[in-house]
Amino acid sequence: MSQVKKIIKRMKVKNELMRQIMGELLGTFVLLLFGCAAAAQVKTSRETKGQFLSVNMAFSVGVMSAMYLSRAVSGAHLNPAVSLSFCVLGDLAWIKLLPYSLAQILGAYLASGLVYLIYHDAIMEFSGGVLTVFGPNETASIFATYPTDVVSMQTNFLDQVVGTAMLMLCILPLNDKRNAPAPEALLPPIVATVVLGISMSMSANCGAAINPARDLGPRLFTFTAGWGIEVFTCYDYFFWIPLVAPMVGGVLGSMIYLVFIQWHLPEPEDESESEEFNEQTKVTEHNNEKDEFFHKMSSL
Amino acid sequence: MSQVKKIIKRMKVKNELMRQIMGELLGTFVLLLFGCAAAAQVKTSRETKGQFLSVNMAFSVGVMSAMYLSRAVSGAHLNPAVSLSFCVLGDLAWIKLLPYSLAQILGAYLASGLVYLIYHDAIMEFSGGVLTVFGPNETASIFATYPTDVVSMQTNFLDQVVGTAMLMLCILPLNDKRNAPAPEALLPPIVATVVLGISMSMSANCGAAINPARDLGPRLFTFTAGWGIEVFTCYDYFFWIPLVAPMVGGVLGSMIYLVFIQWHLPEPEDESESEEFNEQTKVTEHNNEKDEFFHKMSSL
Amino acid sequence: MSQVKKIIKRMKVKNELMRQIMGELLGTFVLLLFGCAAAAQVKTSRETKGQFLSVNMAFSVGVMSAMYLSRAVSGAHLNPAVSLSFCVLGDLAWIKLLPYSLAQILGAYLASGLVYLIYHDAIMEFSGGVLTVFGPNETASIFATYPTDVVSMQTNFLDQVVGTAMLMLCILPLNDKRNAPAPEALLPPIVATVVLGISMSMSANCGAAINPARDLGPRLFTFTAGWGIEVFTCYDYFFWIPLVAPMVGGVLGSMIYLVFIQWHLPEPEDESESEEFNEQTKVTEHNNEKDEFFHKMSSL
Amino acid sequence: MSQVKKIIKRMKVKNELMRQIMGELLGTFVLLLFGCAAAAQVKTSRETKGQFLSVNMAFSVGVMSAMYLSRAVSGAHLNPAVSLSFCVLGDLAWIKLLPYSLAQILGAYLASGLVYLIYHDAIMEFSGGVLTVFGPNETASIFATYPTDVVSMQTNFLDQVVGTAMLMLCILPLNDKRNAPAPEALLPPIVATVVLGISMSMSANCGAAINPARDLGPRLFTFTAGWGIEVFTCYDYFFWIPLVAPMVGGVLGSMIYLVFIQWHLPEPEDESESEEFNEQTKVTEHNNEKDEFFHKMSSL
Repeated sequence: MSQVKKIIKRMKVKNELMRQIMGELLGTFVLLLFGCAAAAQVKTSRETKGQFLSVNMAFSVGVMSAMYLSRAVSGAHLNPAVSLSFCVLGDLAWIKLLPYSLAQILGAYLASGLVYLIYHDAIMEFSGGVLTVFGPNETASIFATYPTDVVSMQTNFLDQVVGTAMLMLCILPLNDKRNAPAPEALLPPIVATVVLGISMSMSANCGAAINPARDLGPRLFTFTAGWGIEVFTCYDYFFWIPLVAPMVGGVLGSMIYLVFIQWHLPEPEDESESEEFNEQTKVTEHNNEKDEFFHKMSSL
Repeated sequence: MSQVKKIIKRMKVKNELMRQIMGELLGTFVLLLFGCAAAAQVKTSRETKGQFLSVNMAFSVGVMSAMYLSRAVSGAHLNPAVSLSFCVLGDLAWIKLLPYSLAQILGAYLASGLVYLIYHDAIMEFSGGVLTVFGPNETASIFATYPTDVVSMQTNFLDQVVGTAMLMLCILPLNDKRNAPAPEALLPPIVATVVLGISMSMSANCGAAINPARDLGPRLFTFTAGWGIEVFTCYDYFFWIPLVAPMVGGVLGSMIYLVFIQWHLPEPEDESESEEFNEQTKVTEHNNEKDEFFHKMSSL
Repeated sequence: MSQVKKIIKRMKVKNELMRQIMGELLGTFVLLLFGCAAAAQVKTSRETKGQFLSVNMAFSVGVMSAMYLSRAVSGAHLNPAVSLSFCVLGDLAWIKLLPYSLAQILGAYLASGLVYLIYHDAIMEFSGGVLTVFGPNETASIFATYPTDVVSMQTNFLDQVVGTAMLMLCILPLNDKRNAPAPEALLPPIVATVVLGISMSMSANCGAAINPARDLGPRLFTFTAGWGIEVFTCYDYFFWIPLVAPMVGGVLGSMIYLVFIQWHLPEPEDESESEEFNEQTKVTEHNNEKDEFFHKMSSL
Repeated sequence: MSQVKKIIKRMKVKNELMRQIMGELLGTFVLLLFGCAAAAQVKTSRETKGQFLSVNMAFSVGVMSAMYLSRAVSGAHLNPAVSLSFCVLGDLAWIKLLPYSLAQILGAYLASGLVYLIYHDAIMEFSGGVLTVFGPNETASIFATYPTDVVSMQTNFLDQVVGTAMLMLCILPLNDKRNAPAPEALLPPIVATVVLGISMSMSANCGAAINPARDLGPRLFTFTAGWGIEVFTCYDYFFWIPLVAPMVGGVLGSMIYLVFIQWHLPEPEDESESEEFNEQTKVTEHNNEKDEFFHKMSSL
């Protein structure tokens, strides 16, 4: 056993950023595996084994599971828009934004590939073997998000800004000790519920990506797997909207939270009190100090 | 950073009532954004992207999110009927009832406007460009509540009284320390579940507003946005029922709780014991003392 | 205020049993109001405003709400089969079984009456004004449970025994300190989830009453309100099954829990240790000592 | 009473393994009773009393209930793939793997039998009395899992590997004190949510058994109860896939968790600190020390 321990110690990744990248990659992988697999299940079963709500719920379970998995390692952002918001809030070093985002996109890409493997036979049966973006047998929407015909570009952009702003506005108070926060050990299911709410109310226009990695990773996969360049060119190059708009929305939502709520909450009076509070936290809630989730926000 | 801190301190709203108004406004905004956007999604997708239950669930997520957002600031009433009940219970100064209510109505109005912007294209497509209150392509019910044809005025009034009474009767015990309360940090999802229950069981007659702000704000918006005066005159001036009946119901439900349950619970014996208890609370649950939610009710 | 306090003190019900009766009555009232109103909503809207699952969920929310409401007062049995089981387990004095049961039945009766008032217009519209037990426009099943045609008497009896046995088998561990219990303050939603599970899996045969009060109260109401004696005579006098079988099942399930699990769990070693444990509980969880829920079972 | 106590003491099962077997048997019984009864309800009611989602949800409630029931006794594995994974992780003695697995299979078998009794009349009505594996009136899928026609053997194998790997990958962090774990007393509902997610997203190909006992027990039952040898021979002897693939997947998922996450988390520094931590746990959360769930994993 002590032998095993030594081997494990040697395999331990010393570089913090590398560990965080692994956490974000695996977390986003889990998120997308649940979500896209549910989309494949509902689509290829022609809604006999689930319905629109199932996909929303599966993404929600994915958020919960991914957060428990990688929260202690990397903060479980799982979303470049969240990472950017935390950069702005001072919770993530700017230099980590790109590695985090790339890890998230890669995780989403790999999950899409695995979903494709699992549902390959069903997708072939459903689509008649033709992988397309349009028509009743399209299967591209299993992976990336696509808009509906009737909605304009500006509306879709606004939709994604508002959806992601709601995400940040609703999850920032959950872990803000100056507010009335949720129990830290139950943040994952509560954040997941917020995501469920957004996907039940703001996915009609263009699929509620609210996450550039969740959208770009699967889109890249479908591009490489045979759906062709149409996944990028269709709907007048729609693909850039779920990349850009969530970044704007995430920062906007965070700012709204700060300006309307956070700045007016009572401040922790002094350092010593704050430390004392942390001690209490450790004693009573086994508060995981490794968890970076927002912990610097309240010291802004 | 210390520079930033100074600026923020200067921007801090000194007036408590103003902070509370901001909290209620933003909270009700979030509640209605989730709820009405879900209604728009279900309606304009002709139930392909959600169903009746989705709207109930989205309002429920909205309650949860709004409570976490503004609970520490304003108590997160989000509803004039709740604010009135807390006035009667001695938990809110009567002078704050009107400002709270106006903030809630304004938040609901603004959320309706944003939902209209996001779903503008879909609403136009669905309705053929004609914004009406009646017929298969009506879209007014995305925003405010409307009764069904077969139900009488008295029944609708009773329906709203009972629904709101149930709301107060079921949420008052959740934070009553003399009863067996829910964990304070989990009040938002539990209150949200009660609201979900009410909307699954008491929304068939006239939509389960149980909240004058949730109804009047969106109705005013539709009035100003092109649905016309019919939103007020239709169904024999139905609009006053979700304004008046919830106020009656909220107080009635609170009274039932006091008379049947609260008065008979063991009293906190003396001041010192009570203080001691609070201290324990602070130590073990990081109990947010800023949260005014019912805290005076048990001292009635 | 001190004047008000005096008046309240005078109104306080001194008799413990009377307070418990009030608690059970109001709790069962809330449970049935949620459940039967949801059944009325789904039935009279012809499943456009909810579906089978909504009724299950509404009963579940009803369980949660009723438990938070009356747990500290009466233990929130809400069900004669539960009360009987607790008598057998030594948690309720046998002399209280009848008063508890009658209070539960009365609560269910009154809730049915209120549901009838709220949904009177919709029921009349749906049924064409004829209140019947049979046919496509029957409305009796909004209130009491009825079997399907193809199922035999013995099967229905077994069904109700098994359903109620599952109820007791699954909720007893939740508050058993010798087992790995759920958080005491979250028992209501977890018990509610168990009830949801039972109604999703064991309601096809005869409606998953698993509760004599939930069935007899509404049945009596429909008898007095115009559905006639058929509510008792129909399906070969089916009505006695949800009265008797749950009593058998509840005790059976409790026994299975004791024999297979509870007796083999490590015992609290001595009185002092037990007291110490209670003290810890009080300090860390604001454990409501008034709550009698099972507290004697582990001392059996 | 002291007399009763003595009798109970004499009946107490002294052998730990025997107690664990009883725990696993009863736990898996409860899991399958919920799940298969829901499948029977949805199938025999021709989806009028539930739908695909109900079955997923009922299995999820079954997981939660079974875990609360037997967690303190046996760790509530409920699944040979989970037991095997815990053997590999060092949390379960290898010698217990076979008894655990047999108990789980027996529990699943018995639950299937009871579901058959309860739904006997409905199954006969639905199937016209002919118990078959194929065709529109097949009823075998109420009990065991069967693949769809279009999916190949390899895909089904991969599907079951991935599903079970996701199970272990998502539940291991929930109780890992070096990670940011869920509250111990709330593990059952959170594990249940993960299972719900898997069954909503990975059950389209072959039913998401992800558990050899959940599949073999019911399959054996249907074999003995009249469905014939076809339950094993059909779909080209599909039955071995849910037996073997989950074992592979469970271990794979556990390894992925160790390699990608667990090994890189901060280690508990020394024995004393670890003990201290446990003490805190005991004080603040009534942490059930009997619960073996993963407790050795972090000491690997």
